[in-house]
Amino acid sequence: MKNKSFYAHHSSFGAFSSFMLGKIGKGGGFVLNDVRPPKNNVYIGYKQEKMIRLFPFCNINNNAEEDFTGEVDNTKKNKPIKIFSENEINREMGWASDTWDSDRLTFSLITPFGYVKDPVAMTEEEKKYAFAPVIFAQLTFDNRDKTTDAELIFGIEGPKRRLSITTQGRYLGGACERKYGFAAASSEDIKELSRLDILTSFANDNYENHDLGTAPSLIFKVPAGTLKTYTIVLATYEQGTITTGIDTDFYYSGLFKSLEDVIDFGIENVDYYLDMAEQRDKELKESKLNKYRQFLLAHATHSYHASSQLMKKEDGSPLWVVNEGEYIMMNTFDLTVDHIFYEMKFHPWTIKNSLDLFAERYSYYDQSGIAFTHDMGVANGFSPKGYSSYELPNLHGCFSYMTHEELLNWILTGAVYTLKMNDKEWLNNNVKIFLACFESLCARDKDYDGIMDIDSTRCQEGSEITTYDSLDVSLGQARNNLYLGLKSWSAYVLLEKIFEKVGLNEISTRSLEKAKAAASTIVSQFNDKEQYIPAVFENGNTSRIIPAVEALVYPYIVGDTSSVSEDGIYGDLIKKLKKHILTIMKPGICIDEVSGGWKLSSTSKNTWNSKIFLCQYVIKEILNMNFDKEEDWDRVHATWQQVSCSGDGATDQVNSDTGTSRGSRLYPRLVTSILWMK
Amino acid sequence: MKNKSFYAHHSSFGAFSSFMLGKIGKGGGFVLNDVRPPKNNVYIGYKQEKMIRLFPFCNINNNAEEDFTGEVDNTKKNKPIKIFSENEINREMGWASDTWDSDRLTFSLITPFGYVKDPVAMTEEEKKYAFAPVIFAQLTFDNRDKTTDAELIFGIEGPKRRLSITTQGRYLGGACERKYGFAAASSEDIKELSRLDILTSFANDNYENHDLGTAPSLIFKVPAGTLKTYTIVLATYEQGTITTGIDTDFYYSGLFKSLEDVIDFGIENVDYYLDMAEQRDKELKESKLNKYRQFLLAHATHSYHASSQLMKKEDGSPLWVVNEGEYIMMNTFDLTVDHIFYEMKFHPWTIKNSLDLFAERYSYYDQSGIAFTHDMGVANGFSPKGYSSYELPNLHGCFSYMTHEELLNWILTGAVYTLKMNDKEWLNNNVKIFLACFESLCARDKDYDGIMDIDSTRCQEGSEITTYDSLDVSLGQARNNLYLGLKSWSAYVLLEKIFEKVGLNEISTRSLEKAKAAASTIVSQFNDKEQYIPAVFENGNTSRIIPAVEALVYPYIVGDTSSVSEDGIYGDLIKKLKKHILTIMKPGICIDEVSGGWKLSSTSKNTWNSKIFLCQYVIKEILNMNFDKEEDWDRVHATWQQVSCSGDGATDQVNSDTGTSRGSRLYPRLVTSILWMK
Repeated sequence: MKNKSFYAHHSSFGAFSSFMLGKIGKGGGFVLNDVRPPKNNVYIGYKQEKMIRLFPFCNINNNAEEDFTGEVDNTKKNKPIKIFSENEINREMGWASDTWDSDRLTFSLITPFGYVKDPVAMTEEEKKYAFAPVIFAQLTFDNRDKTTDAELIFGIEGPKRRLSITTQGRYLGGACERKYGFAAASSEDIKELSRLDILTSFANDNYENHDLGTAPSLIFKVPAGTLKTYTIVLATYEQGTITTGIDTDFYYSGLFKSLEDVIDFGIENVDYYLDMAEQRDKELKESKLNKYRQFLLAHATHSYHASSQLMKKEDGSPLWVVNEGEYIMMNTFDLTVDHIFYEMKFHPWTIKNSLDLFAERYSYYDQSGIAFTHDMGVANGFSPKGYSSYELPNLHGCFSYMTHEELLNWILTGAVYTLKMNDKEWLNNNVKIFLACFESLCARDKDYDGIMDIDSTRCQEGSEITTYDSLDVSLGQARNNLYLGLKSWSAYVLLEKIFEKVGLNEISTRSLEKAKAAASTIVSQFNDKEQYIPAVFENGNTSRIIPAVEALVYPYIVGDTSSVSEDGIYGDLIKKLKKHILTIMKPGICIDEVSGGWKLSSTSKNTWNSKIFLCQYVIKEILNMNFDKEEDWDRVHATWQQVSCSGDGATDQVNSDTGTSRGSRLYPRLVTSILWMK
Repeated sequence: MKNKSFYAHHSSFGAFSSFMLGKIGKGGGFVLNDVRPPKNNVYIGYKQEKMIRLFPFCNINNNAEEDFTGEVDNTKKNKPIKIFSENEINREMGWASDTWDSDRLTFSLITPFGYVKDPVAMTEEEKKYAFAPVIFAQLTFDNRDKTTDAELIFGIEGPKRRLSITTQGRYLGGACERKYGFAAASSEDIKELSRLDILTSFANDNYENHDLGTAPSLIFKVPAGTLKTYTIVLATYEQGTITTGIDTDFYYSGLFKSLEDVIDFGIENVDYYLDMAEQRDKELKESKLNKYRQFLLAHATHSYHASSQLMKKEDGSPLWVVNEGEYIMMNTFDLTVDHIFYEMKFHPWTIKNSLDLFAERYSYYDQSGIAFTHDMGVANGFSPKGYSSYELPNLHGCFSYMTHEELLNWILTGAVYTLKMNDKEWLNNNVKIFLACFESLCARDKDYDGIMDIDSTRCQEGSEITTYDSLDVSLGQARNNLYLGLKSWSAYVLLEKIFEKVGLNEISTRSLEKAKAAASTIVSQFNDKEQYIPAVFENGNTSRIIPAVEALVYPYIVGDTSSVSEDGIYGDLIKKLKKHILTIMKPGICIDEVSGGWKLSSTSKNTWNSKIFLCQYVIKEILNMNFDKEEDWDRVHATWQQVSCSGDGATDQVNSDTGTSRGSRLYPRLVTSILWMK
C-alpha cells in the first residue's frame, strides 16, 4: 500500500479488546474494555551483526534504569539501533491480517474470524473455538543468504511478568497482570528477555532476566542460512462481573479459567485459527473489489471486532453488545441497523439477541405508542430500563431523542432478520411487537401522509433528530425529513410482508397503504425544475442529500426487488430518486469540490463513511446507476482512512474537503462496506 | 500550614488503593493497584449568587460536548467560575485527615485507621469493620450570614455511572466501572449531576442528568442562614484473583459482594469510622511533637496505607503485602524491617505474616546457609520461589544481591517481633529458622571478627550491596561496612536473647561472643585523630555516615537498654558511636551546607528520609544526645516533602542540598517517624 501509517484494531470476536498498531512513530499495544490506542512502545525487529533494526512503533530512549539508580549511564547512548523509516517498509492489510514487510523481516498480525453459530446451539468445545479471546502474530525472517545468526524480538511496554513463571516454562512470553499477554510454545530457539532497558540489554547480548522490566519480550533465533517463521498467541482476559445495570461476565470467562488457560488453547489450536484467517484473506482477495474497497472493508472489519462484546448473563444466556467506537455506547440502535448486513453473513443470532433486549428492556411508551431507546448504556454500564445514555429532553440538535428513527430501526432490523434468515420461530414470538410498532408508527403520522409529523413527548420542548445528529438540519431534523421519510416507507413495505407471513392480512394491507402514502408524499416533493427532492419538507429547505436512497436497501436485501424497481408499484418514487441522484452527484453539490469524495448533504461538510458505503451499494446495485468515477471516489475514501484519519482509527464522520475526522472515531459502523461483496 | 501544595495519599487499610489530592493545579483521583497520582479533575467547591468557586484541583476548560457535536459553543466561554488561589486557602494534615479551608467552605479527606487484630481471631463482623475499603470526605459550608442558598459540588473526572441507578436511589454518587466510587445517603438536599460539561451545567442550573458525562457529581444544598456538613463515602473494590505466582484475592472481597455493598457498609457505619479518625488526629495533636514532626508522621502514615495490601490465599488465610511505593515491589524486606515500629503499634500480626512467607517461599541457600530474598515480586506478580524481582548476579551496585542484609532483616524483624510482642508460640515454631540464620550469619564471617567478609555465591562475579543501593560505596557496599557491621552486632545481641529464651544456652553464649567480636571490630576501626569510624573498613575509606548508629534501635526497642548504654558490656562501642555522631553532625560533613538538612553520608548528596527519622530517634532517645537544632532540622525535612517533593508524594531519597527527589517516591517507609511518638 502507498499509505502505511495508520492505526488499526486487531481483535478477536466479542472480547471487547484490541491490539492496536500501525501509526508510524506512535507505538500501540493492548486495550481492554475500550477502543482507544495505547501509546506503548512495541518492539518488533531483529538483531544481526551487532545492529538492531526495529519497525517504527517504539521510542528507543528508555531511561528506566537511570531513573531507578539516579545515575546517568553514558555508555547507553548511541545504541546500535536503527528504526525503519516509512519508505523502508511496506504494509498490506488483509481481511483477517495486517502485514508489515522490511528488508528481511515480515511481521503480521492475524485476526481470525468466521461464521459463528448461536452459542445456544454449540457444544462446550465449539464455544471454546468460537470465543477464545486470541489473535496471532507472526515473524518471518529470511536468513538464507547470510552466514551469521539473527535474533528477532517481539515485546510490548506495559506487561510486567514473564509467562514462563506461571506456566513452569510450558510456554514463554509476557503478560500484564491477569489481563493480557502474548506467548509462544517453548522451544530451544526461543527465550524470554525482561530488563528495565530491554533494548540496551538486547544490544549488549545481556540475556539475564530482570523482572523489574516492563516489556518482557520474546527473542527468537534464526540460524544462518535458514528462513524461519515464529507464531505468537496474543490473548486478553477479564474475570468476573464486568457490567453494571445488568450484571454480566465475558462469555469466554466461563470457558477459560485464566489468561494462561486461553493462551494454552491458542497455542494448541494455532493451525485452526491461521487457516480460518487465511480463508478470509483469500475471500477478500478473490472478491473482485478494487484495492481501495478491499482495504476499506478490511479496515472496517478490524474495527468492528474491536467494539464487539459477547457477555453472559447470570442465567448463562448470551448478551451481545457492539460498542459505539470512541463513545463506547452499548448497542446504539442506529448502528445496529447498519451492522445487520455484516452480522447476517457471520452471526445473524446477534441481531435477534439485540432486538430481544431492546424489546424487553430498552423500549418505552410515549404518546404514540411503543418506541425504543437510542442505546443501552455506555462504558459497560447498562442504562436504566427504558432509557438510553444519549438522549435528553428539551433539545433540537445533538443529544435529543431519536424516537421515530429507533422505532423504524426495530422494525427494519427485525423484519430484515426474520425475512432474510427465515427465522419463523422468532417472528411468531414477536408478532405482538411488530403490531405495536406498526400502530406506533401510524400514530406518529398525524396527517396520514405516511411520514413523521409529531415529535415524541419524551422530547418535552425539544424535537427529534436522526442518527445524523451532528449534521445540519438537512439530515438532523427528523420531522418531515426525506431520509427518514424513505426509511418510514421502507418500514411499511417490510411490515406488509411480515404481517402477510403471519396471516394478518388486514394489517398487511394497511401497511401497504401507508407505504403508498409515504411514497406519494415523497414523490410530491420532487422539484421538477431542479430535479431533486429537498432534504426537509418545510421552511423552504433546499438541501440535497445522498441518503434519500439509503432505505431502499431493506426491501432489496430481503429479495423484494419489485418494490425498488422502476417497474414496480413504487416505480414513480424510484424514478424520482434516480433523477435526484443524477442531479446531486456532481462537484459542488454532493461531490466535494476539494477532495472529490462523497458529501452526504450539499449543505454540510460533515460526511459519514459508513453511509457513503451503504449508499454506494444502493445506487449501483439497486438503482443500477454506474458512474465512471467509482474507483476515484473509492481512492479518496480510502485515503481519508489511511492518511487524514490515520491517527484516529476507522472513522465514520469526516470533513468532506480535508478528510479529517470530526467524530465517530475507532468506529464499528464502516462494515456497511460488506454490502459490496457478492 | 505554610506550604499547601503537595500530593498526599488517602487510603484505607490494606486495599492497595488511594485517593490522591493536594498538588495545586494538578487534579488527582483514585488509583488502584498502584500509588501514582492520576491527573483527573477533582471538582470541590460551591455555587452561590451565580458564581462557582472551586478548590484548585481542576481545569475548567472542558470541551467534551464540543468534541462530541463538532460545534464550538461560544456561550460556554467565560464561565462564572473562579478557582481559589493558593493564598485563599489553608491546609492542615492530621494523622487521619487532610483538610482544606477557604472563605466559607471546608473540605476534609478522612482516613480512619487504628489497631487491627489478627484476622484469624476476628469475627466476620469485626473483619468488615477492619477491612472495608472505605475512606470519607466531608464538606462543611457556613451560610449563616447569607440570605441566599448555596450549593456544594463534589465530583471526580473518570467515573461514568451514577450510583442511584444500581442502588435504586438508596444512595447517590458516582462510580467508575465496578472499581471505585463515592456516595452519600439519599436525602432531599442532595442530588446527582452528570453532564459532558459538568461545570457549565452547574453554572447554568441545568440539573438534567446526561449519562455520557464522565464526572457524575454530588450536589448538596446549604440553605441560607445555615451551616451544614455533608459526609461522603469513598470506596474501592477489586473482585477475583488479583495476583500471580501465588493466586490471591483482596481479603475484603470475601466480605463484601461489590462496590455497592462496601458503600452501603460505609454509609451505615460512618460514625464509627469518623470517631476512629478523630481519635488518631487527637493523639497526634496531643503527642507534643513539634508541628513539622506531626506533619511528617501524618504524611508518612497516609503513604504507608496507600502501599498496604491485605490479600486472601486460596485456603482463606491472610497474606500481607506492603508495596514499595513507586516501584511496587512486594514486601521488600529492607522496608519490612523499618516498618516494624509502626506495625507493632497497629497490627503486629502482619510482621509475623511476612516473616512466615519469607521463610516458606522467599528463602534460599547459598554457600553459607540460609538467606532471604530482597522482595517477593513486583506489581502483584509474586516472583518464583527463592527469587526476588530486584536482585541480579554479576553486579557491584544497584540491583545486586542484598543477601547479608536480608538475612539480618529476618533475624532482627523476627527477634523484635517475638521479644517485644511476647509471641512465644511463633518463636517456638521458628527456633529452627533462627538457628539456621545464626549458622548462616557466622559462616559469612570468615575471620571470626563478627562482621561480614564474604559475598553470596548468588552474586557470581558481583558483590553484595545494602538497602542504600543507590548511595555511594559508603553505604552501598555490604562487605566490611560500618552500617551493616552494627546491624550484624545488633542481630547477635538479639539472637543471644532469643536462644536464651528457648533454653539453647550454648548457642546463646556463642551469639554473645559474636556480638562482642563485632563490637570490638567496629571499635578498633575508630579513628582517634579524626574522632569517627569510617563507613567501609577497607581501601582507606573516609566517609562519615549517620546510619552507623541505626541498628542500636533493635536492642533498645525490645527493652535491652543495657546493651546500648555507655555502662553496659558494649559501653566502649556506644561511647565511640557517640563521639562519631558528635564529629559528623556538622555542616559540611553530615549536615548539608545548603539546606541545613541531614545528609546520611558525608560523601553523597543522596539522603533518605526514613533513615534520618530512625537515626534521629536513636541519637536522641538511645544515645541521649540533644542538639539545639532539632526543630530547624525538622523544618528542613518537612519542607523537602511539602515543597521540593510536592509533586512526588511522600519521598524517601532526596538530594540533601535541593531537597528534590532522587527516587523512592510515594513511599511507605517514612513511618519510621512513628518512633518519635511516646
